[in-house]
Amino acid sequence: MKTILVIGIGAGNPEHITVQAIKALNRAKVLFILDKGYASDDLVRLRRDLCEQHIQGDDYRLVQVRDPEREDDPQSYRNGIEQWHEQRAALFEQLIADEVGEEGIGGFLVWGDPALYDSTLRILERVLARGRQAFDYEVIPGITSIQALAARHRVPLNRIGEPIQITTGRRLARQPGAELDNVVVMLDARTTFEEFLDQDLHIYWGAYLGTPDEILIAGPLREVCEQIKRTREAARAEKGWIMDTYLLRRPLD
Amino acid sequence: MKTILVIGIGAGNPEHITVQAIKALNRAKVLFILDKGYASDDLVRLRRDLCEQHIQGDDYRLVQVRDPEREDDPQSYRNGIEQWHEQRAALFEQLIADEVGEEGIGGFLVWGDPALYDSTLRILERVLARGRQAFDYEVIPGITSIQALAARHRVPLNRIGEPIQITTGRRLARQPGAELDNVVVMLDARTTFEEFLDQDLHIYWGAYLGTPDEILIAGPLREVCEQIKRTREAARAEKGWIMDTYLLRRPLD
Repeated sequence: MKTILVIGIGAGNPEHITVQAIKALNRAKVLFILDKGYASDDLVRLRRDLCEQHIQGDDYRLVQVRDPEREDDPQSYRNGIEQWHEQRAALFEQLIADEVGEEGIGGFLVWGDPALYDSTLRILERVLARGRQAFDYEVIPGITSIQALAARHRVPLNRIGEPIQITTGRRLARQPGAELDNVVVMLDARTTFEEFLDQDLHIYWGAYLGTPDEILIAGPLREVCEQIKRTREAARAEKGWIMDTYLLRRPLD
Repeated sequence: MKTILVIGIGAGNPEHITVQAIKALNRAKVLFILDKGYASDDLVRLRRDLCEQHIQGDDYRLVQVRDPEREDDPQSYRNGIEQWHEQRAALFEQLIADEVGEEGIGGFLVWGDPALYDSTLRILERVLARGRQAFDYEVIPGITSIQALAARHRVPLNRIGEPIQITTGRRLARQPGAELDNVVVMLDARTTFEEFLDQDLHIYWGAYLGTPDEILIAGPLREVCEQIKRTREAARAEKGWIMDTYLLRRPLD
């Protein structure tokens, strides 16, 4: 039986990798790096460095693959995702068929944690459902950008007895009037926090978390909103890409 | 200046420790283990083992301290927490004064991640506010029981575009009629999921996650509720304590 390891490698800081993930990197003989086509040089290099640093010997192969691009279905966000996942399932199936031997072990490197806003687990279930490849798979958790954000700002994600909501920029943008208490926002392609300037909120913002390019800004949203927007735009222009995460919180009293 | 490291050590699996946490354990010359008085033998032993396994040499001290017990204030949950935090601040202040030298480095070992339902960061801020001890502090994130739960059940915490809510058993118990879509429950001293049997939910439950005693149960809540209750009660009777976490999710369609 083939074994697939889905390995959370953290959000950018190479020291966020766990002992379990290092062992998984060493068990796999082939490691898949999926390249989204943007930010490719920096992000591919970070993963190659991780492998070189933590894998003993050179008895492994890195297979870098261009991930199919998602085409937005104007009819439905979910349909667009659905088609994209089917394309990715076909790709994963082919990779597992071609690159992993009958008793072999292959690994997928996943930014952050495979359980949080990542589709690798869903795609693997879809590959199994297609019925052409049989394999077992294991999940290795990893430090997420949310945890990196909280650690660098030295702020707890919750206050006493408070719940935490984690959502996406896209979803937050659909709730313009929502009263926010304590919400973590991931995958925001824009600056959706701007829509909430009428509320008295505090923001903890971070970009390129855990990397040498890390930027941190925190303060009352009304006071730092423009600074974050300017900083974000300048950084994106300079590097060609940006990944940022933030926590919006209503002050107590 | 003294330095305090707040080190997330994962939720029980010793392999969930990160490279950053291992380096932090090696930087600190004194490591504080706070013992809550219950589950003490097992949980203290797990932390001692981590230190022995990952710290090179024996140039460090482990200081084990009994954490003040929280007394519920019948007037207010928050007041009870407030008094407890003040007692803990006095204890932390004394530990830092007595055990960490003027240029010394001390570390607090924290289960899971210091940003998630842990009060160490708040207590340290309170110690600084008291003004008798000066120190800088750093936060090292760790794998949480939520991530261990998701990894072991091989289930993503969110579905496509869906938000995630993380809450406590105590808080969930105060929302008996709430419509749940996707909620992670931590620190449930009871079996609050029982209150939601009238909703068509799926549960992913885990206890002692990441340890050799780990128990996993998943399925439609109505079908596995009694099994989880029996298993949980038997395990708690046998070990004398239990720590469990679960995800409740409404199936799509």
